[in-house]
Amino acid sequence: MKLYTYWRSSAAMRVRIALNVKGLPCEMVPVHLVRNGGEQHGAAHVARNPQGLVPVLELDDGRILTQSLAIIEYLDETHPHPSLLPADALGRARVRAIVQAIACEIHPLQNTRVLRHLTGSLGLDEDAKGVWYRHWVEVGLRTVESLLTNAPETGRFCHGDAPTLADCYLVPQLYNARRFACDLSGLDTMLRIDAACQALPAFAAAAPERQADAE
Amino acid sequence: MKLYTYWRSSAAMRVRIALNVKGLPCEMVPVHLVRNGGEQHGAAHVARNPQGLVPVLELDDGRILTQSLAIIEYLDETHPHPSLLPADALGRARVRAIVQAIACEIHPLQNTRVLRHLTGSLGLDEDAKGVWYRHWVEVGLRTVESLLTNAPETGRFCHGDAPTLADCYLVPQLYNARRFACDLSGLDTMLRIDAACQALPAFAAAAPERQADAE
Repeated sequence: MKLYTYWRSSAAMRVRIALNVKGLPCEMVPVHLVRNGGEQHGAAHVARNPQGLVPVLELDDGRILTQSLAIIEYLDETHPHPSLLPADALGRARVRAIVQAIACEIHPLQNTRVLRHLTGSLGLDEDAKGVWYRHWVEVGLRTVESLLTNAPETGRFCHGDAPTLADCYLVPQLYNARRFACDLSGLDTMLRIDAACQALPAFAAAAPERQADAE
Repeated sequence: MKLYTYWRSSAAMRVRIALNVKGLPCEMVPVHLVRNGGEQHGAAHVARNPQGLVPVLELDDGRILTQSLAIIEYLDETHPHPSLLPADALGRARVRAIVQAIACEIHPLQNTRVLRHLTGSLGLDEDAKGVWYRHWVEVGLRTVESLLTNAPETGRFCHGDAPTLADCYLVPQLYNARRFACDLSGLDTMLRIDAACQALPAFAAAAPERQADAE
């Protein structure tokens, strides 16, 4: 398998974590999201993924998978051990809800193309861009914290004592939050879970600075 | 079961469609997203869902599920016939990728709270809000169209000849697009699929105007 990735893409990082947790070998192929206006918009990558986004997973037979959640659910179905989803349907619903609270309510508002639109078409300056970024990330993370705190299902990780899909999403989002100096005060439960994840080689090896294309 | 819903919420509409396709009885409980600054932010709803969002599914034993995708995957797992996901893992990955291309790349940029932030904190006028809305919806729908057109898996519906999760997401997003007068020219494949969906009672009965709380 090949993963088209970018070191700082948190969506790609989610998939790197999942691959590592499952111990699946995968060639990393960098797609530079900034250089030349973004290689993800170049003909080579658009032919692979008309969405012009990373991550993209290319299977050994050349089949292409896109969107981090679809990729990770596929990996979990085809390589079920260790599983990234709980064994019970209600547990799976809770994990997927935490995933969506990050993937739909936070990340889309802070990704590269939206930030470019704010400073381009809307004419916001860098300060206003930072205010936007921190607003949505902080509001969103506080909501995720409320899903985690005092929930009996929360354990050493977001759901129980083994990593799930929810942790694959939480850790990259916290990386982004720190990069833009978001206020993480009061997010005690998720910061504790983040530390537990970072202590695992599967998560540590997926970190942006550990990638071959890191700058 | 009870679904906390709002007639015009496209996220709630996705779940209404899924319930209808599966023929599951469910009491609809309206949460008004506009009145009084939004009942979804009121104490009663936040106690139910700290995210302050609809839809919320309440099971007969009082357990709460949030986030439309987590809810629909749960319904599909616990009531598997008719299934809203293909039988093969690659097919499921394709359907989930289409879902995410709508749920992560389009809908979060045009939902109520973001539009309020644009006209509130950022001071955009109604015209500029409309430009923002149409930009992201049109760019996003063109991308989804490219995932559908010429893909051998596309049939009468987004994936094959029976409705899937992808159709539960496409139809509400097109409802939103029409409401804000987005340019749908060239989106021939999805408009054909949308018409095929609308012809099914399960989809027609989920339409906003057909809800008891429609205004």
